[in-house]
Amino acid sequence: MMSTSINSSSTRDSRKTGIDDPGYDGSSGSRGGCNDLKSMARGFEDFPVGTRLVSNASSVITAEAIINFAREFDPQIFHLDPRLAHETIFRGLAASGWHTAGVSMRLFVDTMNVAGGIVGMGVDELKWPNAVRPGDELRLEIEILQARHSKSRPGYGIIRIHNVTKNQRGEVVQSFMANAMLPVRSSRA
Amino acid sequence: MMSTSINSSSTRDSRKTGIDDPGYDGSSGSRGGCNDLKSMARGFEDFPVGTRLVSNASSVITAEAIINFAREFDPQIFHLDPRLAHETIFRGLAASGWHTAGVSMRLFVDTMNVAGGIVGMGVDELKWPNAVRPGDELRLEIEILQARHSKSRPGYGIIRIHNVTKNQRGEVVQSFMANAMLPVRSSRA
Repeated sequence: MMSTSINSSSTRDSRKTGIDDPGYDGSSGSRGGCNDLKSMARGFEDFPVGTRLVSNASSVITAEAIINFAREFDPQIFHLDPRLAHETIFRGLAASGWHTAGVSMRLFVDTMNVAGGIVGMGVDELKWPNAVRPGDELRLEIEILQARHSKSRPGYGIIRIHNVTKNQRGEVVQSFMANAMLPVRSSRA
Repeated sequence: MMSTSINSSSTRDSRKTGIDDPGYDGSSGSRGGCNDLKSMARGFEDFPVGTRLVSNASSVITAEAIINFAREFDPQIFHLDPRLAHETIFRGLAASGWHTAGVSMRLFVDTMNVAGGIVGMGVDELKWPNAVRPGDELRLEIEILQARHSKSRPGYGIIRIHNVTKNQRGEVVQSFMANAMLPVRSSRA
């Protein structure tokens, strides 16, 4: 349904992002069949301040996906019923903001490709400035705002991220700042 | 899978919440079969500052649900594989924070029961201080921090909410502040 790859930078920034590291093999390292969690993919050192990443491929949101998500998590008429949604403030079917957040997380995980995983610690200024409609194609832009080693957890780093999800017309459908923790690559066994 | 009802208040607060309004019939008003979107349930006036609501019933999170959500939206090993998750920072299978957000939204929609729906405008200080584990039973506590009529959209009000999701041991698994827009009841046709 979704596939993503990685651009070195949306702005052709020359800063090192680790994307061309010999150790990067394009595998997510997060699915079964991998006995060594730490054998693949990227870590804290690969995301210095100023790094910009773009999810190369995108995720197309179908009406069916919008409705299925809403049935389980956000059963409101503007997320559930294309006809009745026209009578609401959205003037048509729109994805739940939490659905957009989930789809964006998928793009984030696939794009970051962090060995051992990346854990969200807190999110601020989460906004959904434009509705996501059936057929919209979403891309994620990631910028690393801060990066530091964890004091309390040796072997981990903490990065502050600005995540912006855009539709096929370049309109922002979601944005937020977040702190996330991820393993330091050089501390791998 | 989930069902919720409404307590008047977690603190037996005597402020009016609209729960005992004769017009409240316990129906969500958000599913099909309802020709008049505005005929049921609650509106802006029913949530004055200081209102506290608790989702009476709760949502039990199964390992299967954790894994299914993760496969689609957050495919990281600690959300996907109970055995391998023991080797990660989570020391066992844990739900994606965005899954917890979705489950909490469901509890929110069912508990608020707003005629015409309630639309999130922005979220701040979203945190996941404790992991959600298979079998955990989540409840939502809602407090209305601010309430005002919308200047730009007549017939709508804007409320600021503090949402706290807790597990069966009373530990906070998610919290955030949000602004949300909802119809004013007295403006119904």
